[in-house]
Amino acid sequence: MPIDAELIRIGRRFDARGWVLGTSGNFSAVLGRDPLRLAITRSGTHKGELTPADILEYSGGRVVRGEGSASAETALHVEIVAARGAGSVLHTHSIWSTLLSHRYAEDGGLAIHGYEMLKGLSGVTTHEHREWLPILENDQDMTRLAGVLQQVLAEHPSCHGFLLRRHGLYTWGATPAEAARHVEILEFLLESVARSKESASWRS
Amino acid sequence: MPIDAELIRIGRRFDARGWVLGTSGNFSAVLGRDPLRLAITRSGTHKGELTPADILEYSGGRVVRGEGSASAETALHVEIVAARGAGSVLHTHSIWSTLLSHRYAEDGGLAIHGYEMLKGLSGVTTHEHREWLPILENDQDMTRLAGVLQQVLAEHPSCHGFLLRRHGLYTWGATPAEAARHVEILEFLLESVARSKESASWRS
Amino acid sequence: MPIDAELIRIGRRFDARGWVLGTSGNFSAVLGRDPLRLAITRSGTHKGELTPADILEYSGGRVVRGEGSASAETALHVEIVAARGAGSVLHTHSIWSTLLSHRYAEDGGLAIHGYEMLKGLSGVTTHEHREWLPILENDQDMTRLAGVLQQVLAEHPSCHGFLLRRHGLYTWGATPAEAARHVEILEFLLESVARSKESASWRS
Amino acid sequence: MPIDAELIRIGRRFDARGWVLGTSGNFSAVLGRDPLRLAITRSGTHKGELTPADILEYSGGRVVRGEGSASAETALHVEIVAARGAGSVLHTHSIWSTLLSHRYAEDGGLAIHGYEMLKGLSGVTTHEHREWLPILENDQDMTRLAGVLQQVLAEHPSCHGFLLRRHGLYTWGATPAEAARHVEILEFLLESVARSKESASWRS
Repeated sequence: MPIDAELIRIGRRFDARGWVLGTSGNFSAVLGRDPLRLAITRSGTHKGELTPADILEYSGGRVVRGEGSASAETALHVEIVAARGAGSVLHTHSIWSTLLSHRYAEDGGLAIHGYEMLKGLSGVTTHEHREWLPILENDQDMTRLAGVLQQVLAEHPSCHGFLLRRHGLYTWGATPAEAARHVEILEFLLESVARSKESASWRS
Repeated sequence: MPIDAELIRIGRRFDARGWVLGTSGNFSAVLGRDPLRLAITRSGTHKGELTPADILEYSGGRVVRGEGSASAETALHVEIVAARGAGSVLHTHSIWSTLLSHRYAEDGGLAIHGYEMLKGLSGVTTHEHREWLPILENDQDMTRLAGVLQQVLAEHPSCHGFLLRRHGLYTWGATPAEAARHVEILEFLLESVARSKESASWRS
Repeated sequence: MPIDAELIRIGRRFDARGWVLGTSGNFSAVLGRDPLRLAITRSGTHKGELTPADILEYSGGRVVRGEGSASAETALHVEIVAARGAGSVLHTHSIWSTLLSHRYAEDGGLAIHGYEMLKGLSGVTTHEHREWLPILENDQDMTRLAGVLQQVLAEHPSCHGFLLRRHGLYTWGATPAEAARHVEILEFLLESVARSKESASWRS
Repeated sequence: MPIDAELIRIGRRFDARGWVLGTSGNFSAVLGRDPLRLAITRSGTHKGELTPADILEYSGGRVVRGEGSASAETALHVEIVAARGAGSVLHTHSIWSTLLSHRYAEDGGLAIHGYEMLKGLSGVTTHEHREWLPILENDQDMTRLAGVLQQVLAEHPSCHGFLLRRHGLYTWGATPAEAARHVEILEFLLESVARSKESASWRS
């Protein structure tokens, strides 16, 4: 499937789950690496209703194909591609990621372990794996935020994603399909962790 | 897309999310301003199953095109269009808006701030924005309620929506698409606020 | 729309909302009254995947058209049609109705009032309406249960539905469309009541 | 419907409910019994997007038709078919099964009784039935886990399914349709049990 069609399809799937309401979320996929050429969703689009015209090509710090501005968070996508060699970066904005990104912000992140679902993350082979999901303070200054992200990714070289406080989840993969799988897995785990916390107060 | 088709499509999307169950909710869009001509959903219709015949034209205090009565809450739509210059007004009726509209009724409204999702509201540029969502007592007397609404909109000139107690959410925008985006954003924020309150009692 | 097609369509809608999982739920519509002829779903079918062959005709105490047995709960449908003059009876089986039917069983029912959504119930004109939803003990003896139901319907002549304990919701209407509207409204109200109870323990 | 088409369709239904996110879940159906020939989903596939190429034939300890590896949990499917004479085995991975499988792991299982929905389980004729759902510790050693499962199935000869801790639900049936019905029923019951526990702390 062409990359445009794949991102459009991912948008429809995520919209059905309520992970990209409003104009939230943004998606990218690497088209070439030297120099970096990135397919990225246009700013201000609804991710459940993307058309090919909403997927821009970004390279050398600017849009080189398509009309409109690239997502305001393009700098984060570029940072992740550089740091991880990712082929695709996906950002979603669910209720549970929003909730937990705030609840555990003071701890700087959230540990997830003991779940079979963790095995769906690339390279993880056992539910005994401990995934640390860093939480970054939200910031409207994307250059500054990209700098913080660079540090966080360096400090946590094996993390599969991170949360922006009250802003949502970023994850990535070698391909859009792998990145989408990581979204589904991490969103599942975040809801599981949250409901598990709720169940701690059950009487029996 | 013609305005009828747009309102029909919005109805299907909102129905899928459970925001317009039964015959709840009503939608309008401005067709002309001088005199005001409003496309508005017929009273008693299911918003997930609208047909073009369910979109009436209302002007000068009465239905001028189509069969049946305009939504019982037409006076509120007219008030919002007058006060805000809106091009479209949408009313939804979700579980979370119903819940919070009652829980915070005594406070006269609900403050939402710190969420990135706020940036999807027209004119908001930072998650540090503080949105005040006024709550009005529900009332079956639409003339009286429209009067109260006029006051509330004047007191809160920058609010993007309001709640009717145990009745749901009203929001608006320059176009049906913008109004629909505001619905998605405010419904997301209301669920986030509610679940965040729940999480305050977690043990850790 | 022919009655078969209408019941099939209602089944798909309710299945999408998770109200008729497994083979739960059953639907009927009156085809004629003297003698009573009832279209009713076949026992053991999945309500989200009904075909015309799954809608039987029942009259004079037996299936007069179609193969298989009528729903085990046919006696309850017949009782409701007789007591209320309903044109259609729908039974759903949601999480929230199951939960509340048990939680308030000791009280013999559940009062719902103050919600705008109540106005979608036939004959209700204000949110100040107080709807009493009787709860009956579940029973595998349908003749006995139909007898209890007869009494309950007589005692609560204006109720729009009832719950069977840990078994789900029954409601009805003049037509399948009206009965389906009542299902949506009552299921919405039940979820609202349950989440409202949860919110009572929020810290602020 | 051919067995491949049936498993594909079940996958789409379960995906819509969020029960097979990422690459979680696996499905099988018996093609022949002497020797055992099993249609089983390929390892690493998304169960909502299965194609015929993702359904392999497994017999005599290896894949005999199709490309790729059979699900890592094939040994569990084989064990269930042998112990129960099942015609189809389905494994799902929902939020609620994950939650309860951990919460009640110390008790070795979970009792469910009093729910009408239980009657959808094969051979159950009353809501007074008490279903014991055993919980097994999760294990990446499938040979060892299959051995534990053999014992558990022998100790609980009438159970209709079991949970793997923080890993999900296994159930089965004479046909894929019956197994799918059991999944819907058990997932409904697990959510009901969990929300019922939550409701125990309501103030009234």
